[in-house]
Amino acid sequence: MQKKELKIVDVTLRDGGLVNDFYFSDNFVKKLYEANLKAGTEIMEIGYKASEELFSTDKFGKWKFCHEEDIQNVLSEIVQKSLKISVMADVGRTNYRKDIIDKKDSIIDVIRVATYSKDMAEALNMIEFAKSKGYYVTCNIMAISTDTNEKIRKCLELLEKSSVDGIYVVDSYGALYPKEVQGLIELFKKYGGANKKDIGMHAHNNQQLAFANTIEAYENGANMLDASMCGMGRGAGNCMMEQLLAYLKDERRKIEPIFSFISIEMQKMKDNGIVWGYDTPYLITGMLNQHPKTAIEIMHNRNTDYEEYYRKIKGGDQL
Amino acid sequence: MQKKELKIVDVTLRDGGLVNDFYFSDNFVKKLYEANLKAGTEIMEIGYKASEELFSTDKFGKWKFCHEEDIQNVLSEIVQKSLKISVMADVGRTNYRKDIIDKKDSIIDVIRVATYSKDMAEALNMIEFAKSKGYYVTCNIMAISTDTNEKIRKCLELLEKSSVDGIYVVDSYGALYPKEVQGLIELFKKYGGANKKDIGMHAHNNQQLAFANTIEAYENGANMLDASMCGMGRGAGNCMMEQLLAYLKDERRKIEPIFSFISIEMQKMKDNGIVWGYDTPYLITGMLNQHPKTAIEIMHNRNTDYEEYYRKIKGGDQL
Repeated sequence: MQKKELKIVDVTLRDGGLVNDFYFSDNFVKKLYEANLKAGTEIMEIGYKASEELFSTDKFGKWKFCHEEDIQNVLSEIVQKSLKISVMADVGRTNYRKDIIDKKDSIIDVIRVATYSKDMAEALNMIEFAKSKGYYVTCNIMAISTDTNEKIRKCLELLEKSSVDGIYVVDSYGALYPKEVQGLIELFKKYGGANKKDIGMHAHNNQQLAFANTIEAYENGANMLDASMCGMGRGAGNCMMEQLLAYLKDERRKIEPIFSFISIEMQKMKDNGIVWGYDTPYLITGMLNQHPKTAIEIMHNRNTDYEEYYRKIKGGDQL
Repeated sequence: MQKKELKIVDVTLRDGGLVNDFYFSDNFVKKLYEANLKAGTEIMEIGYKASEELFSTDKFGKWKFCHEEDIQNVLSEIVQKSLKISVMADVGRTNYRKDIIDKKDSIIDVIRVATYSKDMAEALNMIEFAKSKGYYVTCNIMAISTDTNEKIRKCLELLEKSSVDGIYVVDSYGALYPKEVQGLIELFKKYGGANKKDIGMHAHNNQQLAFANTIEAYENGANMLDASMCGMGRGAGNCMMEQLLAYLKDERRKIEPIFSFISIEMQKMKDNGIVWGYDTPYLITGMLNQHPKTAIEIMHNRNTDYEEYYRKIKGGDQL
């Protein structure tokens, strides 16, 4: 895959899977692939390569594990070269030596290695392994809003020397403001710029800034942009595919198939009671630069005493 | 009122009134004033000064008209100097010579004259009239995303020579991207900068950019920022007060009273079925730089065929 041209990555199944435990029907996955194909999306992420030794197949749907045969059963008849298939592999949660097979035997094109900065050494092992198997590989540095610039620089120095193809700012907590995104992209460009590596942005909508931060990253030189249908993703969700296409106004891309998909498939999802998207508790974890888990909990419990919640988690108390 | 210091304007009653036809209870208005007072908000807009000859008092609640005695009945016992009271007066919809009385006899501090660029001559008449009565006066140029830069320059030249205190970018259609907001604020500064006039931003959330655009305006020098509780406002609503305070992290401002107000009063409003906020149809009018009225209509009709809706309004068809 060529570097530095804009690549949009649909993460509906992968980040959205964190909302519904990866129980997407085969029909949904097919329709999503077809919508992205028509829309001109470059990459569709189909789920995680999670280890079955660590996660129960009773609790999670098949897109948490992304077995080769499961993907092929659903997509092999409709797959086209213009829309690559990606999976995410988390450091410490993937049995990569077993589960990442040779590219020539796989329908998968892209492996995205997700890591916290503290686990960069192991991430590099995974990256080099996946590269040796023949994949296009990115490194997605999660919860980057909690890292010092010094720490991030150290990660980037290692990644610069690695064979990784793309490096990603991941605002897992939805804590970043556009100015901070700008600063991070500038920093990433120092290590991955000049056509060396793709630079990516994965935003969360905790403060309703996922779209704005994605635009900000793009205007400053990021060229891999994550988005999902209706922003489906953990908690407050992600940048919306429809927002991004509306903004890009790129004649090679079509927004109509996305609207059509949303009207039918995403509407069904919402009608079935699957809930994601901005709400006050996510603003609170975002502004405090915390993981959204407590927000997801009070949303689940329908607790709307936001002042008390804010005081508690600001002080570091348990709920 | 001193110029150029940051002034936050709470527009919950005024823009939010467009959602519920201005039927806010006296208790809601009091509690809102108290929350803003505790939070450190500078100005609270209480509604419109609409003409009763043009609008029916049967159809609209009293905050559409903002009679002096109605405001005084609710607020005179709790009003304090630190939180000014504002009303909006629309060109062509306000009988201003009759309804705008001497400042010395009024609880109102600020008159915001809202106009389309084509009506600037009449706006200037209203501005000078309100100034002569003793008020702090702003001019809010609505639907500015539909004006050419040339047209905006002409308005600003007239406003620069007027006695208006503040000039406002109003993105009525929620069509602007942050880069465009930056450009507009730079332009406004040429005419109103250097401590001459306050520069304001009123954003709408059609593309979920109200908060991002408000930040962008602020970081580029705007110093009057509109926000509302939970973003309550027409269609997709406005920048949220809670987002703005979370971002500002200003020790003189308190976010807790806002969270408390939201938990109780805004929650009641939502429980009563009052609906506003981002949804796909607003993205569509925003991206097409159109008035949100067709989006409000299809939201009301629960029509979720977004592809058809997009094709229709893009082509300029009626629904």
